[in-house]
Amino acid sequence: MALTVGVIGGGQLARMMVPPAIGLGLEIEVLAENEGSSARIAATEVGDYHDADVVLAFAKGKDVITFDHEHVPQPVLKALVDAGVSVHPSPAALFVAQDKLVMRERLSAIGLPVPDWARLSAPADLQAFLDEHGGRCVVKTARGGYDGKGVRVVSDAAAVDDWFAQLSDDPAGIGAALLAEELVDFRRELAQSVARRPSGDVVAWPVVESIQRDGVCAEVIAPAPASAGRISDMAEEIARTVARELDVTGVLAVELFETTDDRVLINELAMRPHNTGHWSIDGSTTSQFEQHLRAVLDLPLGDTGTHDEWSVMVNVLGGPATGTIADRLPRAMADEPGAKIHDYGKDPRPGRKVGHVTTTGDDLDDVVYRARAAAEHFLD
Amino acid sequence: MALTVGVIGGGQLARMMVPPAIGLGLEIEVLAENEGSSARIAATEVGDYHDADVVLAFAKGKDVITFDHEHVPQPVLKALVDAGVSVHPSPAALFVAQDKLVMRERLSAIGLPVPDWARLSAPADLQAFLDEHGGRCVVKTARGGYDGKGVRVVSDAAAVDDWFAQLSDDPAGIGAALLAEELVDFRRELAQSVARRPSGDVVAWPVVESIQRDGVCAEVIAPAPASAGRISDMAEEIARTVARELDVTGVLAVELFETTDDRVLINELAMRPHNTGHWSIDGSTTSQFEQHLRAVLDLPLGDTGTHDEWSVMVNVLGGPATGTIADRLPRAMADEPGAKIHDYGKDPRPGRKVGHVTTTGDDLDDVVYRARAAAEHFLD
Repeated sequence: MALTVGVIGGGQLARMMVPPAIGLGLEIEVLAENEGSSARIAATEVGDYHDADVVLAFAKGKDVITFDHEHVPQPVLKALVDAGVSVHPSPAALFVAQDKLVMRERLSAIGLPVPDWARLSAPADLQAFLDEHGGRCVVKTARGGYDGKGVRVVSDAAAVDDWFAQLSDDPAGIGAALLAEELVDFRRELAQSVARRPSGDVVAWPVVESIQRDGVCAEVIAPAPASAGRISDMAEEIARTVARELDVTGVLAVELFETTDDRVLINELAMRPHNTGHWSIDGSTTSQFEQHLRAVLDLPLGDTGTHDEWSVMVNVLGGPATGTIADRLPRAMADEPGAKIHDYGKDPRPGRKVGHVTTTGDDLDDVVYRARAAAEHFLD
Repeated sequence: MALTVGVIGGGQLARMMVPPAIGLGLEIEVLAENEGSSARIAATEVGDYHDADVVLAFAKGKDVITFDHEHVPQPVLKALVDAGVSVHPSPAALFVAQDKLVMRERLSAIGLPVPDWARLSAPADLQAFLDEHGGRCVVKTARGGYDGKGVRVVSDAAAVDDWFAQLSDDPAGIGAALLAEELVDFRRELAQSVARRPSGDVVAWPVVESIQRDGVCAEVIAPAPASAGRISDMAEEIARTVARELDVTGVLAVELFETTDDRVLINELAMRPHNTGHWSIDGSTTSQFEQHLRAVLDLPLGDTGTHDEWSVMVNVLGGPATGTIADRLPRAMADEPGAKIHDYGKDPRPGRKVGHVTTTGDDLDDVVYRARAAAEHFLD
């Protein structure tokens, strides 16, 4: 019998799990939110992941259930576990990823390096944090944020009154409190991906540099330039510790700040394949998507070596203002025959991640140039 | 609108077109022979490709129709073209691939190097050919042969009487005559793959060495050792000429003999991705499957460069005597974390191609060892 993987969520992460599943002879089925999802080729079912009955029915006969996102409610996750379904990452691990306050508390308790932070229940808490941190800080909603949403830089305790008004225990809301964080004086952002099997083995890819624009990942350089040695050692040790201490299974991506005083601090965690690991499809012997499938099935993990010295990934954000990515393929392919173009099969929309381009090679300037040049063809 | 490719035939070649289609954002649909085909994830329809109505209905709305095999009857292909469907490769090109006698006639007419051959209508023709060629030769059926089937080495004019009895004009039969070929004194077998767009552009991968066992491809080494220069130039020139002269579109694989007197002769042609090109999935910037999709859609062709010096592919022939390939994954993955394992999702059966393994690297002995070691795990 083939091994069967069920993925909850039909976004581009589920979509990109399909090719390695086909390669390894795994059956893959996706529970998508709607018809025409990015993962539609494997979306055997469309249904609401908030409904335990829908999810339990989908899980039937699957060797493992994993995820395209971290939003499946805990009661639904627990219903799966109670029914004897293998769920990776586990509900307990996902609980940490689902709430930024829980995450900060756990990471601090483990003793991992994080920015200064505080729990905010009322504007007075924010005023106190501002007073301690030079009058400026970052405020984040504990839940529901992504790609820069749910994040504000503030210098006025009244600047997030709208969020304070929304605080509640409802798990579908923004959380019961807000998170304040110091504004970190960072040189650049890094990301470290690892994969961990339930049986405990962990492998790491090289630490990468992630270049953000408007709070969204725009480009990734793998490995991060000038990271060999101390920086990469610290990044890998942090990610391995997070994976082990939080019992994460599958791929874990740790977004990091490299500070101007040469420290490495944890920014965010993602317990799934992550945008900063897309380069691995074309740049590593084992992509993050193949590795995630191996890890959640508790199969031995693959080699994370790279073929070329450098890989560069550029996101296609928004896509063309008129027409589709497909319309732009002829020019992009003609100009950059070595670029690996990835189209997520989504309708263009301003700011939306609709695809990415990866190039590899041994001359970083050339690799960056080619990736940007190819990606440009898909924008206006 | 996404570009839509329809593939006729649900074997492993169609299966392996699915990952690059997902990558490039192409919609891919397969007309499979039966439920549970190797390409089942994209097999939106099950039907008989001999039935023009079935194939015409399948072709509706597709930007191009292409193939997993060369067996679609000419009247069905012509019905597609008459209905305005874009068909690549064309019926005229496939006509040459469907009949070994037609192929030999066309290649000889173009002036390309082929083994001595003759058309056999009766045992007397075979006796005459044996008399001219030292009493031994190869006899092949014009149609219906593959993987060593329809091929015999004979030294007696009565040795293929059963085939002579079956000769007919029925296109589903073995053909109206047999093909005799000299027994070529060859050093090794090579294969040269190219891809050609309808607009004429052609790209070539490196020539490879193909190691056959019992008439079936067992291993491929890319590039063929000690082929740089004259051998690779001849192989590429032959394949480019075949593609151009026969107006082949998509991937063309030319199986070649390297003779003991340093000539290169054409053995067989395949107008589709081919077993000798599977290494390109993991060893080349553009795999033969991605390139085939680009070519049949008349999109610009991709870079055929390689990441590592060597790629070695070993077929998994037959599969395990008990259980499935999935059962053997843990041991194979643990022993060879860098091996790329490909499972075609087919039931094991003696001699059947059920998967393959590819390894890459810069030390050929090591690359060969690792590919064989990984593949061994899937056999008994």
